[in-house]
Amino acid sequence: MTENTAILLMHCPDRPGLVAGLTGIINEAGGNILHLDQWVNHEENIFFMRIEWDLAGFTVPREGIEEWFLTQFGRRYAVHHTLHFSDERPRMAIFVSKMPHCLYDMLARHAAGEWRVDIPLIVSNHPDLGHVAERFGIEFRCLPVTPENKAAQEESELALVSAELSAKSSGGDRAELTELAERQSHLLHLFESLGGWEKEAEAKKIAAHARGVKLIGATSHFVTADLDQGPIIEQDVVQITHKDTVERLVRKGQDLEKIVLARAVSKLLDHRVLAYGNRTVVFD
Amino acid sequence: MTENTAILLMHCPDRPGLVAGLTGIINEAGGNILHLDQWVNHEENIFFMRIEWDLAGFTVPREGIEEWFLTQFGRRYAVHHTLHFSDERPRMAIFVSKMPHCLYDMLARHAAGEWRVDIPLIVSNHPDLGHVAERFGIEFRCLPVTPENKAAQEESELALVSAELSAKSSGGDRAELTELAERQSHLLHLFESLGGWEKEAEAKKIAAHARGVKLIGATSHFVTADLDQGPIIEQDVVQITHKDTVERLVRKGQDLEKIVLARAVSKLLDHRVLAYGNRTVVFD
Amino acid sequence: MTENTAILLMHCPDRPGLVAGLTGIINEAGGNILHLDQWVNHEENIFFMRIEWDLAGFTVPREGIEEWFLTQFGRRYAVHHTLHFSDERPRMAIFVSKMPHCLYDMLARHAAGEWRVDIPLIVSNHPDLGHVAERFGIEFRCLPVTPENKAAQEESELALVSAELSAKSSGGDRAELTELAERQSHLLHLFESLGGWEKEAEAKKIAAHARGVKLIGATSHFVTADLDQGPIIEQDVVQITHKDTVERLVRKGQDLEKIVLARAVSKLLDHRVLAYGNRTVVFD
Amino acid sequence: MTENTAILLMHCPDRPGLVAGLTGIINEAGGNILHLDQWVNHEENIFFMRIEWDLAGFTVPREGIEEWFLTQFGRRYAVHHTLHFSDERPRMAIFVSKMPHCLYDMLARHAAGEWRVDIPLIVSNHPDLGHVAERFGIEFRCLPVTPENKAAQEESELALVSAELSAKSSGGDRAELTELAERQSHLLHLFESLGGWEKEAEAKKIAAHARGVKLIGATSHFVTADLDQGPIIEQDVVQITHKDTVERLVRKGQDLEKIVLARAVSKLLDHRVLAYGNRTVVFD
Repeated sequence: MTENTAILLMHCPDRPGLVAGLTGIINEAGGNILHLDQWVNHEENIFFMRIEWDLAGFTVPREGIEEWFLTQFGRRYAVHHTLHFSDERPRMAIFVSKMPHCLYDMLARHAAGEWRVDIPLIVSNHPDLGHVAERFGIEFRCLPVTPENKAAQEESELALVSAELSAKSSGGDRAELTELAERQSHLLHLFESLGGWEKEAEAKKIAAHARGVKLIGATSHFVTADLDQGPIIEQDVVQITHKDTVERLVRKGQDLEKIVLARAVSKLLDHRVLAYGNRTVVFD
Repeated sequence: MTENTAILLMHCPDRPGLVAGLTGIINEAGGNILHLDQWVNHEENIFFMRIEWDLAGFTVPREGIEEWFLTQFGRRYAVHHTLHFSDERPRMAIFVSKMPHCLYDMLARHAAGEWRVDIPLIVSNHPDLGHVAERFGIEFRCLPVTPENKAAQEESELALVSAELSAKSSGGDRAELTELAERQSHLLHLFESLGGWEKEAEAKKIAAHARGVKLIGATSHFVTADLDQGPIIEQDVVQITHKDTVERLVRKGQDLEKIVLARAVSKLLDHRVLAYGNRTVVFD
Repeated sequence: MTENTAILLMHCPDRPGLVAGLTGIINEAGGNILHLDQWVNHEENIFFMRIEWDLAGFTVPREGIEEWFLTQFGRRYAVHHTLHFSDERPRMAIFVSKMPHCLYDMLARHAAGEWRVDIPLIVSNHPDLGHVAERFGIEFRCLPVTPENKAAQEESELALVSAELSAKSSGGDRAELTELAERQSHLLHLFESLGGWEKEAEAKKIAAHARGVKLIGATSHFVTADLDQGPIIEQDVVQITHKDTVERLVRKGQDLEKIVLARAVSKLLDHRVLAYGNRTVVFD
Repeated sequence: MTENTAILLMHCPDRPGLVAGLTGIINEAGGNILHLDQWVNHEENIFFMRIEWDLAGFTVPREGIEEWFLTQFGRRYAVHHTLHFSDERPRMAIFVSKMPHCLYDMLARHAAGEWRVDIPLIVSNHPDLGHVAERFGIEFRCLPVTPENKAAQEESELALVSAELSAKSSGGDRAELTELAERQSHLLHLFESLGGWEKEAEAKKIAAHARGVKLIGATSHFVTADLDQGPIIEQDVVQITHKDTVERLVRKGQDLEKIVLARAVSKLLDHRVLAYGNRTVVFD
C-alpha cells in the first residue's frame, strides 16, 4: 500500500475504443495499471471509469499528468474528469448542529488514523458541541443563525471554510490547492438524511407512524441548492419493531447514521464516488 | 408441537391488573400458558397481548371458550379479540395478475407442507398464470377487468371467493366457518407493494432514478379501500448498484417480494399479527 | 420514561401457574406491570421471564422488594433471579489493549449520555490508549503482561477493578453494591471475537483465506475461564468481496465490532440479557 | 439486451500492459467492449479479468475466437480462460435428496424464464421428490445409495448426467458441447451447506446449541473431492432468536438456502464466477 499512485475518475459519451485507448497511453508511458473499474450507462450512452496506476515507472512527471491526459485523451473524447494522487491529504471541514454522535465518530476515526484526511475546522450554528471539538483539539467556530441573518451567516460559513482551507495550504502547490478546494466542497456538505437536532421529535413521529413501518433508513448524499436532494452516496436501513421506545429508535437511528456517514466519507476519500447529473456511480 | 392450543390476540385500553387478571382465569381453568407476549402503547394507552395455552387440561370446552373469555374478562375491559386454535386449517384464496414468482413460491410452500393452510382457489384478471395453477392442481378463475366492468368484476371476485370458501366448509361447525371467513378476508388481500405486471416498467424507472438510490424495498400489508395504504406486516430491502441492469433489478425485486410475502403469510398463519387502526403489532 | 421501575430477570423449572402467580402478587401489591416478556424452553423445561413494573403505587418499600419476592414466589419455585431498578447507575470498567476503535465508540456514547452508566476506570496491558482515556478524563491503569507475570497481573487487574468500584460506592447501600459488583463482572469481560491487537494479521489471513469467504462476523459474549467460549449476547456479519484490501477488511471488521459491542452493552444496561448455562435469552 | 456478446473470464500472472494489450486487440478487431471488470491479487501476483464485447461489428468469426484469443494473447501470457457467448443456453442437471424447497424454487425460476438454462434431468438417491419433477415435466432418475453400492452409484450418476447432456446435444457443434459439459460439471455439484435431509435434526442441534448463536448461515460452493470444501460462490446469514422453535429455524434456514443457491446459480449463468485454487473471484 505504500506505492504512490494516480487515480483518474472520468466520464464521457460512450464510443468504441475508450478502454483500449486510455489503457494504451498509460501503458506506453510506463504506468502499471493496478485497478480499473469501468461501466457504461447504455440508456444514456455514458462511459464511466475509475483507473489507478503506479507512478513508480511512469515517465510523465506528476505535475504534467493533468495536461498529458487532456492532450492525449481527454479533449478528444469530451471527458469530464478529476485526477487524484494516493499521497494527497485532503482537508475537510465538518458542519454540525447539536447532535454529537456523528461528530464523535468522525473525530475518533480521524484520531485513530483511519482516514487519510486533515480536519482543521468544525463549524456550527449552536455552541453545544464546542466541548467535543476541544476534546480533540480542533478549532470550533459558532455562527448562530436567526431567521434574519440566515443567508448572511451561511455565506460567512462558506467564506470561513474557504479561507481556512486556503490559508493552511498556502505555500503548497497551486494545482493541489484547487483540487482540494473542489473536493472540499463535497465533503463539508455531506449530510445525513434522518435529521439533526429534531431527532427526538422525528423518532416520536416514527413511533407514532401510521401503517407501522418496520424499517428506518439513513442516507448520505451530496448537498445541492435543494438541501435534501443531492445525489446519494450511501444508504442503509435497520429493522424496528412496535417494541422500540422513542429512546431505542433514536439509538438505532443514530447508530445507522454514523455508519452510513462513515462509509460515505471513506468512499469519497478513496476516490470511489463519481457524481453526474443527479446520480452517482460508486466504484466498489 | 402436537399439543392442541388456544391462541388469543387482543387489545383494549390499558389499566393495572390486566396481565394478572387474564393469566389468573386461564390458570384457574387449568390452562397451562405456553407463550405470552404483551406490549403497551403508552402514548395511546392501549394494551396488546398474544397468549397461547395448552388445551390438554383446560376445563372449559372448546366451543365455550369464546363466551367464557367474554364473560370472565372481555366485556369488562372492552376488549377487541380474535380466538384461534392451533389445529385449525384456514382456507386462503390467492389473487394474482401476470407475474408468476410469488405464486410459484406460495404454491411450492403449500405443496411442501410448510404452511398449515388450504388453497382452494386462485383468482386472476388475466389468463397468463392458469398453467401454474394447473401444475399444482388448484382451481383457477379468470375474471378479466376492463374500465367498464371493473367495479362489477371486483364484486364478483369477492362473491366467488366467499362462496367457494363457505361451500367447501359446509358441514363443518359454524363457529369455525365464521372465523375462517374473517381471517380469509385478510389473507386474500395481501399484496406486495413493489409491483405487479408493470414490474419491468418499474425496474426501468428505478434504473433511471434521480439521485441514484442504493436500496429497493418491498412491503406486505393489509389492503384497505385505499389499495396501497393498509397496515404493514413485513418489510425489507435489498442493495442495488449502478451496475444492476433492468434484468438484475427485476430479479432482485422479485426475490425480495417472494420472501417478504412469505414471511407475512407465515406470521399471519401463526396468529402473530394484530392490526389496529392503521398499524400492526407483530409478535415475534 | 421518567417513571421509576423495578425490573426482574428470572428463570426456574417450568410448571403451570407461574405467570399468573407472579403477576398476581405484583398486582396485589399495587404494581402496574409495564413490560412482560416470557419464554419457555420446552426441551429443557425452563421458564424465563423479564418483568418490569411501575414503583409509583407499589406498596412494598424498595429495600424490601428482594425479600418480598423471595418469600412470596422465589423460594417456592426455585427461582434464579436478579432485581434491578431503572434509576440505578451501574459502574463499568473497560479492559483494552491496543486498538482504539471500540474504546472511542464507547467513551463517545458515554460522553453523549447515551448510556446510563459510569465509567471510572480503563485497564490495559499496553500504554498505547492512555491518550484516549485522558481525552475523556477517565483514569487509565496500565498493567503490562509478560509470560512470567501473566497470572499475577490478571489477578491484580481484577483486584484493581473490584477495589475501584467498591471504593467509589462506599456509603451506598449494600444490596446495590453487591448487585453492581456482580453485574460489573459481566460488563468488564465483554470481548469482541474478531481480534484485538493482531487485527491486521487476522485481516491478512482472511484476505488469503481458502475458499474465499464472503462474510466476516463479530460476536459479543460473556467471558468464561475459556476466553472465547462464553454465552453470546450479540452477533452480526458484514459482506466482503475479493476486492477488499487488507485496509478495507480491517475497516469493515472494526465497524462491525463497534456496533456489535455497543448493541451488547445497551442490552445489558437495559437488563434484557439473561445468561443461563452456556446460553443467553435476550429479551427484545 | 438482445445484442449477441462474447464473455471472456481469465486469469494469468500479473505484469504491466495486460489490460491495454487485450482491450487493444479486441478493439482492433472491431469489438466494442461493453463490460470490463479487472482485479489484481497483489499478494499472489495474479491478474483476473471478465470482459464482454459486442459481436455485432467483430471481424473474427465466432468459431475462430478461441484460437484468435490464444494466438494473439493467451499463449504469450500463460492465461487460463473460459470463453462464453450470451446466446448459449447451457444444460443443467439437478441432484437432490429429500427436501423439496430448493428444487421447487429452481424449477419455478426455470419455468418462469428467469434463467437462460435447460434442465433436462433431476437425479436423486431417494424417490421422494419424483412428484415435483413430474409436476414440472422433467425426467427424474432415482439411484438409491447403500453403504455397499455408494461408489458405484455415484459413478453411475455421473455417467448418466454426462450421457444425458451429450446425447441431447448431439448434432450440435463440438466446441459448444465441450464447453457445456465443462460448465455442467460445476452446476450439478452446487450444494447448499446447511444440510439436506437431516435438516430437522440439524435445526434441533442449533436450537440446543451451546452459547446461543444469534445467526444461522448458508453457503453455495463448488464441490471438490472433499464434499464441503469447494470454493465459495455465495454466502448469507439470517438472524435467529431464542424464541425460534425448531419449525421456525427450519423455515428460516430453508428460505436462506433457497436465495443463496439461486443467487449462486444466477451468477454462474451470467459467467461472473471465476474459480482458482480454492477461492473464487465473483465479478458483480
